Amino acid sequence: MTQPQPSHTTHTPGRVRVLTGAKPTSELHVGNYFGAIRPAIEASHDAGKEVILMCVDWHGLTDRSKILEPGKYTAGLLATYLTMGFSLEKNMIVLQSEIPEIPEIAWYLSCVSAVGLLERAHAYKDALNSGKEPTAGLFNYPILMAADIVTFDAQVVPVGKDQSQHLEYASDMVKLFNNAVGRPVLFEPKALIQETPLLIGIDGERKMSKSYGNHLPLFAPKKEIEKRIKEIKTDSKGLDDPKDPETCAVFQILKSFASKESIAYMEERLRTGTGYGYGHAKKDLIDEHERVFGCKRELYEHYINSPREMAQLLTPSHNSARQLAATVRQRVRDALSLGIL
Amino acid sequence: MTQPQPSHTTHTPGRVRVLTGAKPTSELHVGNYFGAIRPAIEASHDAGKEVILMCVDWHGLTDRSKILEPGKYTAGLLATYLTMGFSLEKNMIVLQSEIPEIPEIAWYLSCVSAVGLLERAHAYKDALNSGKEPTAGLFNYPILMAADIVTFDAQVVPVGKDQSQHLEYASDMVKLFNNAVGRPVLFEPKALIQETPLLIGIDGERKMSKSYGNHLPLFAPKKEIEKRIKEIKTDSKGLDDPKDPETCAVFQILKSFASKESIAYMEERLRTGTGYGYGHAKKDLIDEHERVFGCKRELYEHYINSPREMAQLLTPSHNSARQLAATVRQRVRDALSLGIL
Repeated sequence: MTQPQPSHTTHTPGRVRVLTGAKPTSELHVGNYFGAIRPAIEASHDAGKEVILMCVDWHGLTDRSKILEPGKYTAGLLATYLTMGFSLEKNMIVLQSEIPEIPEIAWYLSCVSAVGLLERAHAYKDALNSGKEPTAGLFNYPILMAADIVTFDAQVVPVGKDQSQHLEYASDMVKLFNNAVGRPVLFEPKALIQETPLLIGIDGERKMSKSYGNHLPLFAPKKEIEKRIKEIKTDSKGLDDPKDPETCAVFQILKSFASKESIAYMEERLRTGTGYGYGHAKKDLIDEHERVFGCKRELYEHYINSPREMAQLLTPSHNSARQLAATVRQRVRDALSLGIL
Repeated sequence: MTQPQPSHTTHTPGRVRVLTGAKPTSELHVGNYFGAIRPAIEASHDAGKEVILMCVDWHGLTDRSKILEPGKYTAGLLATYLTMGFSLEKNMIVLQSEIPEIPEIAWYLSCVSAVGLLERAHAYKDALNSGKEPTAGLFNYPILMAADIVTFDAQVVPVGKDQSQHLEYASDMVKLFNNAVGRPVLFEPKALIQETPLLIGIDGERKMSKSYGNHLPLFAPKKEIEKRIKEIKTDSKGLDDPKDPETCAVFQILKSFASKESIAYMEERLRTGTGYGYGHAKKDLIDEHERVFGCKRELYEHYINSPREMAQLLTPSHNSARQLAATVRQRVRDALSLGIL
């Protein structure tokens, strides 16, 4: 069912508005940088895109026992994107919890969405099957996510396969709402389904994840980084044996963030083998980590310790975001004839 | 389980903050005046009370097929309270949809509430049993209602028996939230369970209700009022028969809004019977309706046709309400460490 899109949208000709969410639920590591942070930063330098990077702290509250975590990790998440060069020139970094239009619009979406739709959500069913007692927040998560998207007239939302159902839901809710009010008010987003690139952890076995404890931090003290890299599991090949980069965790981790030159260099040395053991490779990984992240450690720490400065940096983003959100909110309220005037 | 209440609340010493909701879902009639409007107006003149009368238009959206109704009936509801003398001096009339803090706080409550709690709500189960496909809005209704209450630190909420479970839920959510953040942040309201006084309709059979078509409007043209009152069903007692006021719909409807004198007069005449038939009683009811409502028809119409004036009248209410809501919102956000600063 194709429906007309609203005629008065807020898009900039020649630029596609891309919405990307990032949840502040733990300290960030190289796996996050590879999978989410770097792609968003690269998109922010793409002239054809207008990126709204949303720090979705509200989504992080849905587990009651971890309800205090988003508040702890938000500053680190924002500081990471700023430190690593997200361009604010034609893009925005938005803290979800600063946009009250989102939960308001979520309410309108909830009033057109059947309970059954939410009951069929994979993430909710997984939570039930795992024996957890899900919160209403977890149950309503797809509605809030749809609201994130439609509140900003987002055109494209890059998501992993595990999130594709939520994007279908967002499209469904847009259609349901537009049908209920009898005209196209909300903009229907397109999902950009992506293979989420996974990075191997320092255990050389599972994907890098804070919960497995096999992660390599971004801005930890150099000594800790060295220690973690030295712990990376390798096979028993000797100094002069040819080594397979594809199965070498040291190389895979390097490849996830290093410069082309550094990647080509290590790949070549490993394959050849001669005089280049895993100890050398780890030394090179430490140097590259220091070159890419370590040299920005101070800037990162500066942001973390200067929330006021960070807030100021993000003020233009929040002003633009609030203006956008207010426009869409008014469109929705007009369609429902809400308000006194 | 008794918990400490937050120490810094927003209450005025010597006044109990009472929150009352009114849903704009149809044209108001004498039954509504009797059951809800008059009690709220009387409370607004009680020096010991600070009444927040909330026009809960968001609650009216939960039935997708009637999603456009609240927008239609809000002006009439607000105009009715103003016309009939609700005192704004130390009280507020608040339009729910003007308070974005409510859905935000609803999100926080949803993140501490188990899905099972909502599944056990009577209203939701009734909807399921009636074969309807309930919306997520209907499912989440108890959360939004709890948010209405806690956003204003309401102390007392008068509710009918059918709503008492929702007040228990609100208390539960307050406890769950305060427990999750480890300190008393939200104020726990008390329910004031009331028998909802029912009024008989003009069919003399069922309770007065717009959906039964047996209602007597408040501000309809006099001719329509006369027509409706003349239609009131009575028994076949003759002019000079003694009549029982308890079973006489004309008297019951009069009693719901008339002055003491008019009530005593009709009661006496009906009991005695002599020379006082139902025709006379209907004539007296028409006169009394005109005296109480009809003479204010112009004022009501004036409000309806001057939304800007109504908005201005309610501006102080909305300013106070937003200030209150912002205070509570900040308490909640501080407890969760949300925001950048």
